[in-house]
Amino acid sequence: MKKFLNNLDDMLGESLRGFGRVHADLVVVSQEPAFVRRADAPARGKVALISGGGSGHEPLHAGFVGKGVLDAACPGQVFTSPTPDQVLAAAEAVDGGAGVLLIVKNYSGDVMNFEMAAEMLPGPNATVLVNDDVAVEDSSFTTGRRGVAGTIVVEKIVGAAAEAGSDLAACQALGERVVRATRTMGVALTSCTVPAAGTPTFALGEDEMEMGVGIHGEPGRSRLPLATADSIARDMLGSALDDLNAPGDVPLLLLVNGFGATPLMELHLLADAAIRLIEQRGHPIARILVGNYCTSLDMAGASLTVTRLDDEMTGFWDAPVHTAALRW
Amino acid sequence: MKKFLNNLDDMLGESLRGFGRVHADLVVVSQEPAFVRRADAPARGKVALISGGGSGHEPLHAGFVGKGVLDAACPGQVFTSPTPDQVLAAAEAVDGGAGVLLIVKNYSGDVMNFEMAAEMLPGPNATVLVNDDVAVEDSSFTTGRRGVAGTIVVEKIVGAAAEAGSDLAACQALGERVVRATRTMGVALTSCTVPAAGTPTFALGEDEMEMGVGIHGEPGRSRLPLATADSIARDMLGSALDDLNAPGDVPLLLLVNGFGATPLMELHLLADAAIRLIEQRGHPIARILVGNYCTSLDMAGASLTVTRLDDEMTGFWDAPVHTAALRW
Repeated sequence: MKKFLNNLDDMLGESLRGFGRVHADLVVVSQEPAFVRRADAPARGKVALISGGGSGHEPLHAGFVGKGVLDAACPGQVFTSPTPDQVLAAAEAVDGGAGVLLIVKNYSGDVMNFEMAAEMLPGPNATVLVNDDVAVEDSSFTTGRRGVAGTIVVEKIVGAAAEAGSDLAACQALGERVVRATRTMGVALTSCTVPAAGTPTFALGEDEMEMGVGIHGEPGRSRLPLATADSIARDMLGSALDDLNAPGDVPLLLLVNGFGATPLMELHLLADAAIRLIEQRGHPIARILVGNYCTSLDMAGASLTVTRLDDEMTGFWDAPVHTAALRW
Repeated sequence: MKKFLNNLDDMLGESLRGFGRVHADLVVVSQEPAFVRRADAPARGKVALISGGGSGHEPLHAGFVGKGVLDAACPGQVFTSPTPDQVLAAAEAVDGGAGVLLIVKNYSGDVMNFEMAAEMLPGPNATVLVNDDVAVEDSSFTTGRRGVAGTIVVEKIVGAAAEAGSDLAACQALGERVVRATRTMGVALTSCTVPAAGTPTFALGEDEMEMGVGIHGEPGRSRLPLATADSIARDMLGSALDDLNAPGDVPLLLLVNGFGATPLMELHLLADAAIRLIEQRGHPIARILVGNYCTSLDMAGASLTVTRLDDEMTGFWDAPVHTAALRW
């Protein structure tokens, strides 16, 4: 295993400390319990958005803490759910009196720990569960579909709504609407290596790829021979768009998300393929985002996410955002 | 070789087309000859900044085309210099009548081709040569020190000066001052794989790293056993800071740059190590930037860059920027 690391026990703490120092204008990092909050939190009268999950998906979620997206993020150890006390401490720090919305990726550990936290929260709260991955119905760590890169779309759009003054029920309803409008499928060209394990999570042959892989290296739909970018994009988009069943004239948001070890040059080439294929199917592409946003440690690969936009979602997507990972 | 790719001949063109579509609000892409220019170019009366070099270092340089940095970028094939006709076409597209400043990384091919272009340019022009890499004096493709991630610091600071109305001579002088104030050293944990070669550029053992590696996989100073992040940062910073010979009270800019396949979690951990070590040496850190900015295809590894800031440089660093890769 080759990683920039001092020792396993301090990996998360040192990385968070570095993140906090680099982005000291935006965030404050708490180490015990571990959470990252907006430097200007709590915002009085605003619904507080909190997300979290296992580390190893950076910039998700801490990179989206700031104006227009999250009020706090709770990072667990690598690929491990955060504990309820992290969520409670984050909520206490950022609750501005208008309630707390928890945005949770659908993994059994996350669901359980965020549910426990929700039950203990003193004030009004609600939860949006993200399950955008069309690849498999159940998986190693999931009952039902997994929550993956589409989480960013949910967090950005609901974050803008909260910033604009939407109340807790409206934020939750909007979040659930974005989840219903969002589909993702990913492909791995290499495995990731979890630091505590020290060896690749799964074995892939020199000419193989894992189609439909999960963001922790969970098995996908099929082990296939490595194909061209066009063929890969066609396979992923076909699954996502067929499942979304969007009318041809509905504008789509396209997110081309790298898993961590895939260079930007390849992500833009994959984006070019995806754009051509979506337009060939007759869908207008209204918004595009390309980069490493929901990663899987050092996995080479990428996912394609499509969201069926309506005018309200588009307006919130375009609203100003000022975080480490997104800024416009 | 595992890459998102259709065929080698179209790789650069397809990737540029994707980049142009994703960032259509910022840039216009020309395919023949290949260059990327600001969508609002030429800016009348402003010095036009043009950079370029081999592809495979994305987001460098096209990701820095936009308000406050470059007017145009000329991408060559992977790890191959752009040709003079690319530079001439870019200059024709963005020259606003106040002259053209070429920012060139010190590699023999780049130097030769940009010099040829400079001789053919019809109007006033000047060149800033970047050679920030302290690792080795000469290298596979270089006479003298290599130009690496410090190029971003030069481009950002001079870009802001040009935006603020500095004339050609002032921009050149400032650029050369930033070059003299900037030092970088890198380390590879894995090799990159050049698409046209299809196999790793160099072999590294499971427990080895290449200290002082170049951004094309050129040999560095020494092949060493893999060490802790603190030890790696101490080695790289020691070389860079000793060479820079900055008085203890001079504020520094720190750039922690990933080579493409190193996750953000590790880059922030490396940043934490670098910050501690620099402050232990008594240097105040005035600005920090962490991310994948000057990459080496799919190489795992990173470089540390330090720039001795003065008030003018700091002001230009902080000036607004609106590009694909930097925005504030």
